[in-house]
Amino acid sequence: MTESKWKSGKPATASPWKKKVVEPARPPVPRQTAADVAGPESRPVRPSGEMRLYGLNACLAAFARRPEQLRKVYLLESRIAELKPVLSWCAGHKLGYRIVEATDLDKLTGSRHHEGICFEMLRPPALGLDELLRTQAPAPAPSLLIWLDGVGNPHNLGALLRSAAHFSVAGVIVPDSSTLDLSGAAARVAEGGAEAVPIVRVDDALVALAMLRSAGYTITATVPRDGEPLYATCLAPRNVLVFGAEGEGMSQTLIDAADRRLSIPGSGIVDSLNISVSAAIVLGEYWRQQHPG
Amino acid sequence: MTESKWKSGKPATASPWKKKVVEPARPPVPRQTAADVAGPESRPVRPSGEMRLYGLNACLAAFARRPEQLRKVYLLESRIAELKPVLSWCAGHKLGYRIVEATDLDKLTGSRHHEGICFEMLRPPALGLDELLRTQAPAPAPSLLIWLDGVGNPHNLGALLRSAAHFSVAGVIVPDSSTLDLSGAAARVAEGGAEAVPIVRVDDALVALAMLRSAGYTITATVPRDGEPLYATCLAPRNVLVFGAEGEGMSQTLIDAADRRLSIPGSGIVDSLNISVSAAIVLGEYWRQQHPG
Repeated sequence: MTESKWKSGKPATASPWKKKVVEPARPPVPRQTAADVAGPESRPVRPSGEMRLYGLNACLAAFARRPEQLRKVYLLESRIAELKPVLSWCAGHKLGYRIVEATDLDKLTGSRHHEGICFEMLRPPALGLDELLRTQAPAPAPSLLIWLDGVGNPHNLGALLRSAAHFSVAGVIVPDSSTLDLSGAAARVAEGGAEAVPIVRVDDALVALAMLRSAGYTITATVPRDGEPLYATCLAPRNVLVFGAEGEGMSQTLIDAADRRLSIPGSGIVDSLNISVSAAIVLGEYWRQQHPG
Repeated sequence: MTESKWKSGKPATASPWKKKVVEPARPPVPRQTAADVAGPESRPVRPSGEMRLYGLNACLAAFARRPEQLRKVYLLESRIAELKPVLSWCAGHKLGYRIVEATDLDKLTGSRHHEGICFEMLRPPALGLDELLRTQAPAPAPSLLIWLDGVGNPHNLGALLRSAAHFSVAGVIVPDSSTLDLSGAAARVAEGGAEAVPIVRVDDALVALAMLRSAGYTITATVPRDGEPLYATCLAPRNVLVFGAEGEGMSQTLIDAADRRLSIPGSGIVDSLNISVSAAIVLGEYWRQQHPG
């Protein structure tokens, strides 16, 4: 795929993408071309700060919130109608876009779950904990944060961001030592939720916990057993809910450092619940307590 | 892998698997052998009624409940200690087991998430709706069932079975037209929950709904919007919770046929929640209402 094949920079009134569509004999995109510009996401060839977003809801949410951070668009022909505003924006802002085949999107995204769309786009802005706290009304106003300890699965992160957006979580805190970061896969699974819930990395967990406590937050760890039963617990309105990885669970240091330890009651037939499921259950209960009636 | 290489049929006291482990020069398993006995799960070469189970918790739960339905065992050497009771059972019941390499398990299971273990085993017994209903105390005793309409993703089914087991769901009802069935992937994600929660297929949805109503169940559909708010709803103790597929959602016929329509309140930032997440939130709320205090 050479740069000359990119569509860009024409006035929006010229509707170049419409011309593209009606071309009767558009030459097929060679199978290698997409791989030339990029391997799958696991091989980071993007300029620092850029990422490949895919999935229709993830891309539309990113475009709705920060269109000026869009760099390039790849799409299937069948997605043109839904992406008309995006393509008009590209035409008006001299951005490249390209209609490609599904196999090209497979390669660009390293996934078969691209849903016919891929954006090259800046990452959502990195936020420090102090910045996140400044976005929140001061104590005692309700505010809900999530802390993830050791979670490494992008699908769990994505599912969690989706639920977090649904239940108005203000941010997700991740220790700097974690390998977890917002990948294209996580953003796709989040279905747009990743745009609404910033991920905040902290390098010193104990310092961060102290900052959160001074800002009036209660630190609440969810553990598989022996915690206070969730449904008999009054959840603090200003709360940091801590969830650990499956398998190893969260570090004992963090469990010990928490103000409260919760468990989700149940039959005991299975050892634990999926991390994104546990989180959603606790978020839902927090919502219920905050919105009585 | 020829049959003669299988270990089987020696008295448990002879501990043949221990001998196997201490062999200093065990020849490597040829890469093709596992493929000879089976392709990945998506190519059904198993005798009817058998399946390949994998994942440590899934296998251990199946063995704990129905060891007599075990047919063969493949495992990594590193799993021997945890599977000692299984291997002793094999030795005592003339069942084949074989220590293999990870690449063999990749092929046998069609997955890299086998966790070092694969069982060839009969499927959990198929149950008719009438049989399921006979396992439940008669109305007005509490009883919770799930109905899945159009859900096709094995990971969603697995996550749902895990939560269903946690919250004591008595069975999951699936229309016969659905492609959904218990696969090795779904059972692995269910972490043992698939053994506790039977899947019941029904060929005529309206007949099944009528049977459920005569057995005293309320049919409650969870929809993304415009339903009664979950946390302001008193959930019937005898309840069939209906969840639809992502994307298309559930069929309008089923929504119309339901006695109640629920929605999970939230910010509205994302369109909907993941099906397994939605289900867990509603299951948790049902549990809370049934276990006050």
